[in-house]
Amino acid sequence: MFQARIYVTLKQGILDPQGKAVKGGLANMGYQGVADVRVGKFLVLTLDSPDRQQAEQSVREMCDRLLANPVIEDYTFELQEV
Amino acid sequence: MFQARIYVTLKQGILDPQGKAVKGGLANMGYQGVADVRVGKFLVLTLDSPDRQQAEQSVREMCDRLLANPVIEDYTFELQEV
Repeated sequence: MFQARIYVTLKQGILDPQGKAVKGGLANMGYQGVADVRVGKFLVLTLDSPDRQQAEQSVREMCDRLLANPVIEDYTFELQEV
Repeated sequence: MFQARIYVTLKQGILDPQGKAVKGGLANMGYQGVADVRVGKFLVLTLDSPDRQQAEQSVREMCDRLLANPVIEDYTFELQEV
């Protein structure tokens, strides 16, 4: 079994209203030093795969096809055997 | 300036309907080997702070007070100077 930790973030330059709202909330609470907030998704996926190479290929495919929106999002992932 | 990479996840044992939906979607697309999916949040926060210790304390406070729901979520973060 492999565990993939997948990080999906908005591409640079894409407006992040959720991040902006969080930044505003923090500023209202007194955290003035926060210069920027970006909000993304974090997925932990456990999958059955015969080897690491195949697991990596599957995760990449799943990200491209379902987990991330390639138009506005980037993703990275780490894979470890569990 | 410090950059905090914050990972917010549902606590173990808390039902994750979004993860379940993603798992179902992947199964429908033919990815039968996916045993489990958990969906969380990933935040990248840039903050101005005189030193690492203070930055760490601020981030911990922000997580406790706004970024994570301590009742059902856990969080971890990494801090690096930028």
